[in-house]
Parts: sequence; C-alpha cells; structure tokens
Amino acid sequence: MEGYFDRLWPICRSITGNGLRESFNILKELIPLELHEVKSGTEVFDWKVPKEWNIRDAYIITPDGKKIADFAKNNLHVVNYSVPVDKRVEFNELKKHLHFKKEMPNAVPYATTYYKEDWGFCIDYNTYKSLPEKGEYKVVIDSSLHDGSLTYGDILLPGKNEKEILFTSYLCHPSMANNELSGPLALAFLYDELKNRKDRTYTYRFVLAPETIGAICYLHSNLKQLVNNVIGGYIFTCCGDNGPITFKKSREENSATNRVTEHILKHRDDVYNIVPFDPIGSDERQYGSPGVNLPVGTLMRTPFSEYPEYHTSLDNKSLIDFEKLTDFVNHCVQFVDAIELNQKYENQIKYGEPFLSKRNLYEDLSTKRSHSETIKMRMRLLNFLDGSRDLLEICNRYGYSILSVKNEINQLVEHGLLKVRA
Amino acid sequence: MEGYFDRLWPICRSITGNGLRESFNILKELIPLELHEVKSGTEVFDWKVPKEWNIRDAYIITPDGKKIADFAKNNLHVVNYSVPVDKRVEFNELKKHLHFKKEMPNAVPYATTYYKEDWGFCIDYNTYKSLPEKGEYKVVIDSSLHDGSLTYGDILLPGKNEKEILFTSYLCHPSMANNELSGPLALAFLYDELKNRKDRTYTYRFVLAPETIGAICYLHSNLKQLVNNVIGGYIFTCCGDNGPITFKKSREENSATNRVTEHILKHRDDVYNIVPFDPIGSDERQYGSPGVNLPVGTLMRTPFSEYPEYHTSLDNKSLIDFEKLTDFVNHCVQFVDAIELNQKYENQIKYGEPFLSKRNLYEDLSTKRSHSETIKMRMRLLNFLDGSRDLLEICNRYGYSILSVKNEINQLVEHGLLKVRA
Amino acid sequence: MEGYFDRLWPICRSITGNGLRESFNILKELIPLELHEVKSGTEVFDWKVPKEWNIRDAYIITPDGKKIADFAKNNLHVVNYSVPVDKRVEFNELKKHLHFKKEMPNAVPYATTYYKEDWGFCIDYNTYKSLPEKGEYKVVIDSSLHDGSLTYGDILLPGKNEKEILFTSYLCHPSMANNELSGPLALAFLYDELKNRKDRTYTYRFVLAPETIGAICYLHSNLKQLVNNVIGGYIFTCCGDNGPITFKKSREENSATNRVTEHILKHRDDVYNIVPFDPIGSDERQYGSPGVNLPVGTLMRTPFSEYPEYHTSLDNKSLIDFEKLTDFVNHCVQFVDAIELNQKYENQIKYGEPFLSKRNLYEDLSTKRSHSETIKMRMRLLNFLDGSRDLLEICNRYGYSILSVKNEINQLVEHGLLKVRA
Repeated sequence: MEGYFDRLWPICRSITGNGLRESFNILKELIPLELHEVKSGTEVFDWKVPKEWNIRDAYIITPDGKKIADFAKNNLHVVNYSVPVDKRVEFNELKKHLHFKKEMPNAVPYATTYYKEDWGFCIDYNTYKSLPEKGEYKVVIDSSLHDGSLTYGDILLPGKNEKEILFTSYLCHPSMANNELSGPLALAFLYDELKNRKDRTYTYRFVLAPETIGAICYLHSNLKQLVNNVIGGYIFTCCGDNGPITFKKSREENSATNRVTEHILKHRDDVYNIVPFDPIGSDERQYGSPGVNLPVGTLMRTPFSEYPEYHTSLDNKSLIDFEKLTDFVNHCVQFVDAIELNQKYENQIKYGEPFLSKRNLYEDLSTKRSHSETIKMRMRLLNFLDGSRDLLEICNRYGYSILSVKNEINQLVEHGLLKVRA
Repeated sequence: MEGYFDRLWPICRSITGNGLRESFNILKELIPLELHEVKSGTEVFDWKVPKEWNIRDAYIITPDGKKIADFAKNNLHVVNYSVPVDKRVEFNELKKHLHFKKEMPNAVPYATTYYKEDWGFCIDYNTYKSLPEKGEYKVVIDSSLHDGSLTYGDILLPGKNEKEILFTSYLCHPSMANNELSGPLALAFLYDELKNRKDRTYTYRFVLAPETIGAICYLHSNLKQLVNNVIGGYIFTCCGDNGPITFKKSREENSATNRVTEHILKHRDDVYNIVPFDPIGSDERQYGSPGVNLPVGTLMRTPFSEYPEYHTSLDNKSLIDFEKLTDFVNHCVQFVDAIELNQKYENQIKYGEPFLSKRNLYEDLSTKRSHSETIKMRMRLLNFLDGSRDLLEICNRYGYSILSVKNEINQLVEHGLLKVRA
Repeated sequence: MEGYFDRLWPICRSITGNGLRESFNILKELIPLELHEVKSGTEVFDWKVPKEWNIRDAYIITPDGKKIADFAKNNLHVVNYSVPVDKRVEFNELKKHLHFKKEMPNAVPYATTYYKEDWGFCIDYNTYKSLPEKGEYKVVIDSSLHDGSLTYGDILLPGKNEKEILFTSYLCHPSMANNELSGPLALAFLYDELKNRKDRTYTYRFVLAPETIGAICYLHSNLKQLVNNVIGGYIFTCCGDNGPITFKKSREENSATNRVTEHILKHRDDVYNIVPFDPIGSDERQYGSPGVNLPVGTLMRTPFSEYPEYHTSLDNKSLIDFEKLTDFVNHCVQFVDAIELNQKYENQIKYGEPFLSKRNLYEDLSTKRSHSETIKMRMRLLNFLDGSRDLLEICNRYGYSILSVKNEINQLVEHGLLKVRA
C-alpha cells in the first residue's frame, strides 16, 4: 500500500487534466476501473463541466532574485485552476494573489479557483512575512485551460442479485495524504479483497471520480441505475489517519447501511463515532442530495473538520498509519459480510415449532436444567425469522453479533428450515 | 391598555345581558368585532341558550339595619343569574343562600347559577361570622330573567390563504381581572398588531364569546368552516399576571400549534411551562371536544388552578402586570411569524447540490478549513427542504430558531432555489 | 386445593398414557373438560404423535442385593418413555443409562426420552457414588410402548361475543409440584371462579394438554378457530411457589394481553416482573410460533430457569404456597375484569362537551376553585373516549387504574353518554 502511496503522492491532480489521468492509471494496477471522459461544457444537472486544466510549472522570483512558491517543489504553491500568468508586478498587486495561514505559519494552504478565472499562489506565513514590499516580482504560471474533458472511473463486481452496494471515493487533490490518497487506496484494496469472492449475493460498484463535479457527472450518467439498484454503500474520505472509525449516517435514517454499520461497530472492540447525516463534507452532498438520496453513509477516521492539517501541506505521509488504513478496509469487509447475511429469512415450519429432534438439532435426552446457548439461539432464530423481519433485528433483540450467527443460519438453511424470502 | 382595563372593570357581565353588550362595545374601539345574538331557548348541540339575565341592584339589610353584600359596591356579591328576590327571612333560611370562603376570610367568592333557578349572595367570611343569628334579614335582588339573547363577536383578518389561525377568549365574568379581562385585552391588542400586516399568508379569526355556552354557540354556527379551515390557534385565559407563559397543548399531539409554540418558547430566553391537553379548564373543553378537535392550544400565564385568588374578589387589578400582558401579545406575534414561515419548501434542484457559485451564494476561492455558519445553514436548508418536511423539522434538527432562518429562506426563494410546495 | 394436589401428586404422568387420563379425571371434578384422543402416528404439523407409553414398575438390584431406583417409591427414577428392559448388566454398561446431578447430590433428576427409543434411570448422586463397580446389576423396567393415543381436554365458557380469551396449561410431568401441578390447579380454580359469571362479554376457552406435543395437537385441530377468535389469554406454568408474579409478554408487543397485564400489575401493590417474549420455555413456543402467533402471554411466579429444584425430585409440595396459588388465580380474575372493561367506548355527544347539569352529573352552583376528582375523571373520560382509543389508553394517560373507573363508565353508559363502538 505504501508503494502505491509514494507513486501517487507527487502528482499534481485536479478535477480535470493529465495528473488525474496519470493517477487513475497507477490505481488501475489494483482496480481495473473503466475510465470515462466528460467533455468540457457538458451540462450536468445544475452544473457545467469546466475547461480542462493542466500545468507544467509555476513560481515567483522576488526582487532580490529568490525563487519562491516553486510548483516543482510543492504543487500546493499554485492555486489549483490558476490561469496562465507571466508578468512583473509590484508587491501591492501580488499580495492580492497570495494565500497563507497566519495561525499555521509553516503550512502551505491548499486553494482552488475552479469556477472563477483567477490566479494565485499559496505560501507559508513565515515566507510571506519575509517578502520585501519594494521592488518588482516576477510571477510565472505555465498552465493551460482548454476545452478538454473530466475523467472518472468505475467498475462492477457482479453478484447473484442485481441490487448493488456502492463504494466510492474521490481523486482530485494535489499532494495531500489523508484528504486525498487514503480514500482511493482504501477503495482499491477493498476491491482486491472482494474480487475473488465466489457467491457474492449483491453486485459491488466501485466509483472513483473528482470530488463534487465528478460525483455530479457520475450521477448524471448513471442516475436511474443507481436509484433503482443501490441498497447500501459507503463514501470514503479521510480514512488513513490513526483516529477511531467515524461513520456519518446516510440521509435516510433507517437504511440498511446505517443499521448494519452501527451493529458491526458496536460489536467490535474499538472506539468509534457515529454522527448524523449532514450535507456538509464530501460527496454525501451529491449522493445524499434530495432527488438522489442513496442509502450510503460516509466512512472516515478523523473527519475533515477535526484535524488542523486538513487542506494544507501538513496533510502529508506522516499523518498516514498504513495499519489503520488496512484495518479500515477490514471493517468494510465486515460490513459487506453483514449486509450479505442480513436477509429476511422465512421459517418453513410456521405452525408449532419445528421438530428439531428428527434433524439431530436438539438434545436427545432432556436432563439439563436449561438449553445450551446454541439451542436457544436456534429456537430464537427459527421463531422470529418469519419473513417479516431481517436477521439484524433479531440479532439486536438478543444482543447477538450478526457475524456470530452465520454458521447457525447456514445450517438451518441447509436443513430447509429457513429460506431467504423472495 | 390600562385605560381599557379601568373602563371594563366595574361592569357586571354575565353569559348574557347588557353588561356583556356594554363590554363588547368598549372593546370594539380596538377590535371591530361583528356582534351576533343567539335567542334564548336556541338548541346548540347538547345545550340550550338560557334566558337573558340583567340586574340593577342587590343587597341584604341585617336585623340591626346594616347594608351588606351590596351589589353597587362589588358585583360579585350577588350570585350570577340569581332570580329576583324581595323578602324578609330568618338567618337559618338566609344561610342556605350565603357563600363564602373560610380559607380566605377577606375574599368575596364568585358564584353562578346559570342552569338552575336559584338566588344567593357571596360575602367574605369575616362578614359572615359577624352576622347576628336572630332577627329578620331583608334581601333584595333586583334582577330579571327573560327571553332575550346571548351575544358574541368575531372578525376575520383575511390572508392569501383561506386556511385560518384562530384566536379566542371569553367575556362573561363580572369584576375580575386575570380570569376575565386579561384575555379579551390580549385578543384586542393582538388584533391591533396584526391588522396592518401586508401579505398575511393565513387568515386570522378572532372570536370573543361567553365562556362555555358562548363557545358552544359559536361552534354551532361555524362548525364546518372551523373544522375545514383552522390549522392552528390559541385560547387566551388568565394571561395578565406575572407568572411564566404556560402553554396547554392542543388535543392533537402533533399539531402545528404544539410544535411551533414549543419551538418558540424553547428559543426565547424565558421560563415557560408546557402541559398536556386536559379537558378541564376554559374553552379548550369545547374547541377540543371530540367532534370539533381543533388544533388550538390554551395560552396562559398562571393557570386558574394554581393561583389562590382565582374566582374571588382578590382577582383584581393588583394581580395584573401590564408589561407582562404586552409581552404575552408579543409572544403571540412570534407564534404568528413562525406559523407563517413554517411551510414545506421544496428544493428546485433535486439532483446533486445546486451550483451556488454561479448565484454568488458560495465562497469563490476555497481556502478556509470549513464553511461559514451561513453557508452551512444554506446547504442544510437546501438539502433537507425537499417538500417532505416542514421548515420547523429542519430547524429542530440543527437547533436553529425558525425566526433566525427567515432571511436565508427569503433569499433562497428569491433565487428560485426554494418554492413552497403547493 | 391442597386436597386435589395430594390426589394428583403420586400419579406417574407422561405425554400419553393412563396416568395422564387418571389425572384428567380427577381435575374434571373441578373443570368439566371435554377429553380428546389423538392416535399414535398422527401427523401434526412438523411432528408425529408418538406411541402411547405405560409403566407398571421399574427398579435396579445392585450386586449386593439392594433395590435402588425404585419406581414404586418415586416415579422420577425411571427415564420417562423408557422401553421395557429386564436383564443383567455390568456397571460399565449400566452407567450409560444412569442420570444424576452432581451439583445437587440429594436430588433425583427428571429425564425423558420421548422421541428416541432408549431406557434409563435417574438417581441421586449420593446413591450413585455408593454403587459397587464390580458384580452384576439386575435392571427391570416393566413398561409398554404401543399404538394408542394422546389425551387432551378443553372446554368453553360462552360469552356475548364470540371473541375468546384463552387459558391453558400442561399436564404431562410425573410427581413434580411447581412445574406440573400448579398450572392445572390454577386453571381449574380459575374456571370455577368464572363459570357462574353472568354477562361475560367474551368467550373463555380452557385448554389442558401435554406440554409441547399436546399443544401442537391442540393447535392442529383448532387452528382456524383460535387464530380467528383469540384476542388474549395466558399460559400457566410454575405458578405455585412464593415468588413474585412474572409475566412473559406475548410475541406481539402491542397485544391487549400485554397492555392489560402490565397495567394491572403496575396498579397492584405487589412486586412483579415483566419479561419479553422468548421462544424458550413452555407452550409459548407453540402458541407463539410464527404462523400461530396468538396474543397470549405466559404467567408464572418464579420462571423455570430461576429455581434450582426445577426438573428434580426437590420440586415437591414444600415449594408450593397455596395462598400464593389462590392469589395467582385472583390476579387472573382481575385481568379478566380489565379485558372485559377495556372497550373502545364512543362519546355520543361529539360537538361541545355534554351538558352534564341536566343529567345531575355536574355541580349546580359553581363556587369551588376546582372540580372534584370525580367530575374531572368524568370530563376526561367523555372527552377522550371518542371511539378511537380504548379505555386503557386513557387510564394510562391519567394514571387511573382501569378497575377504579368501572362505576363511572357504567354510569355514563346508563346515561347514554357512552356506547361501546361496534
């Protein structure tokens, strides 16, 4: 995982352009995404796909000849989507185009100007303070904005059922770690975990697109399919640090995603946070927009608003804990297991309890004061799984972990005592 | 307000008669109620309008020649609706017609005998104790009971919508302050506040009638209109003292009245009480009868059952705090504002979030770690106002005061992003 | 009650056979059950009625000539449903057929082998320890298994309404007290209490059958009638000890049985327990099976899993408190009263409150500061009993015991103010 991280890190990505394509091509080694291009100017719901942006170089030469804000050293120095510039300006003019964070004097902030033609540089506050107010500055941004296209990728892992579980993250930030590379890497490694499974009940859809406009493009092209088929899923963001798992619920309070996730987190022996849906944040703003309203939650470790390095040069590899990122993927595997297991099973013996003895599912000679926990679980599952409730409801009634009843469910299905309700 | 109080105070009102009409005529200077007369003997649901009662004088002359229980000094001395009497009686006989409150020896109690022909006097207990047991008493009640009519008044302030908000109080008690004049005065001054409003969304109905039988008459004449159109409202009683606002909920638990009132009270910086509906009290007994069941609550300060001066001569001007009465009216204005604002708005951009930048409703250049509270509120309102929820539900989700989001709602409506659901 | 207990105690009952029939015949003196026989081999849902079992004698002769495990002294010594045996065996062979409870060295455990042909003896652990390991044992079980029938009984007490309240218990254990005789005795004495009632609103069904297979036979023969008509009821088990009443809810959470039982227990001045439905235990496993799902709860004192003498020879008369057993029956009488009273009454005066004065149901002369509790109760019942709610809901709203409002309800019905909703 770390090797992929290191290869992706230096690339200057944006919501369009060649840095984005290059990043997709590296990830395709892990997850064979099918790439799609959406032309600049395409109307997508209330939005329009912007021109494609590419950049080769950018820097400032101070009056005393020093090169600062050098894109070659850190691609955050240039405001993303800056128009080309090559001129000499006074400090008073330049100042209007400089961005810094006074409260974090060593950090280079991250800034974008996707939808307003402008240019600018981001520098640390210490550098800013050292700049002479007199003399001429040379500013160079060797970028281009032209009619091109926006790139996104998706792939399906088919299952027995056309109903889908959606996993998605975004790819569009330049060199940042937790709020960029953690999500695509988790997505790719989760794909790798699930691709060899046989007998997947559901179909798994993986989507990777630039944040916001990319998600909107994706929804625009796939709306009907998604709305009809997606029954659960997750948006990954900021999932590589060492904070506890944070789950932001789907907009629909009673979605299977919300119920299963809460159940699994509760039964794992870890700290976790569950927070309500809020249309502030990442692509839940699109997937949870009122007409789309997919039952997908947002899965993170530390939320973007709660770590100070967010959207600065300090969001770098030192924030990433690769073991925690692996553990994040393992959580997702458990969510998948639980979603697949959580069917509405229907007891095939409805009148009176099933005669378990003739199936060797009961004690032959009754001498014990009470049944074993296994027999109790069996009788409870058989009684309550009447087709009207899903397995999770019964597990929650009795405090069982849904994953711990898997073998019993399979045994009862094999005996013909339970069937998944059609 | 105090001037009107002083003019209304001395009049001997009852559920019918000229004192009632005189009081209406004073109030009409503030609120141009249309008056209606319902003839004695008219059947109104399970009830019958009683004969009209008028009184000119009443008193007792003790054996030692003192005049006590003098109606001219305090109209509570005569039991309301007493039949005419002019005779001499022994103390033993008189005693059966005397009412007092042992536990409040200085108070003259208030008594009525609307539906049983009888007569009586109310005196303070100290006076009662001083009465000689021997000798003859002269008792005079110069009253009349005749076929006449019961008077009530109402008026509409029309709005864009035929749906109505009802405000009502009662007029029928003789000289008492909190449990009589506070309600009609609040009603009249609220009318005065609302009459000049332009663009009222709803129609406002003001009703003033004798308690119980008057409310029943009013319902009998206006049932269909009320049941079809009233979507909220308030009954005013005991609202002039200096206790905290008390709201008794409407019979329907989830009425807009209940929800809005609770919301506003919670967001004001005042002590308040909310109590469940109970068919004991004032005209909520009628407006909340099972077949009527209007979504109107009862608005008070100290409830009748919780102040000892209730229904005695001590319920006088000294209990009234005119500033608190004004504040009561101001609360009602806020309830009105909230009810008008609390629509089911529908986001006109359903798929993906609206592109706020092109409407200058978003930050152009993203450098901040998180959005301003204004932008967050905007995104939350746009996401959740999908036509399925009213504004109050979303405000409660986020702890916003509904009155504090008014400007934002208006702005989003002006931009065409929100529309009130038809 | 004690006399019946003593006569029933020594009989060796099982799920079939003559001991069972003999027990029924004793109980018929109290409750004239109609007896039904279901032939061996009959298929009843997922089960099959087993052969009929009868037994005359059983014992073991030790190598040193002592007679142990003597059926004549305690019928628990033989494993219920043992096949006939008459042979000599080594201790190592015998051991496989001996059952005891190490943790209760004085107790003879209770064991059965209904559905697997086998034989065995139950002895106390102290005896077991004293057995010589060498020498030959003689074992005799003089039993028979033949095609016969299973016996159960039922009887109806008809009411005005064909809807039914079901009371049931089981009869099938040999000499045990709390977990056998307490239930049938409570059932018989409850019948005795209810049989002379006039004007029963509902029909009362009493069922006594062997546990599990008997209940299944009963359901198989009466399913449609039960599912269509039973609106409430109770399964009796372990109800004769001196523990507090324990109510295990019916499977349907909101059943009238659950609501009424909880209400009555709460208003009685006794400790009690209410536990959720769980398909572990007695005949709730059948009456609460998914296709049957009758709204009946399980009524006990100490549940089987919570007293150590359960299913041993120590569950004997010393555990039974006949006063508590009588009190248990009295509880049931209150449940019956409450279920009969708990109708959806409908106020016949829907618009405005009823004019109570003309019916002498109100104070004539209003001088009191507040109404009496009786008048308040009257006004509350009249307001809320609008046909949409049952009486219990209103009693719970105001904290009234449903039994305490009975007279008021009857009075309002007599005045024509309330009617039971058709």
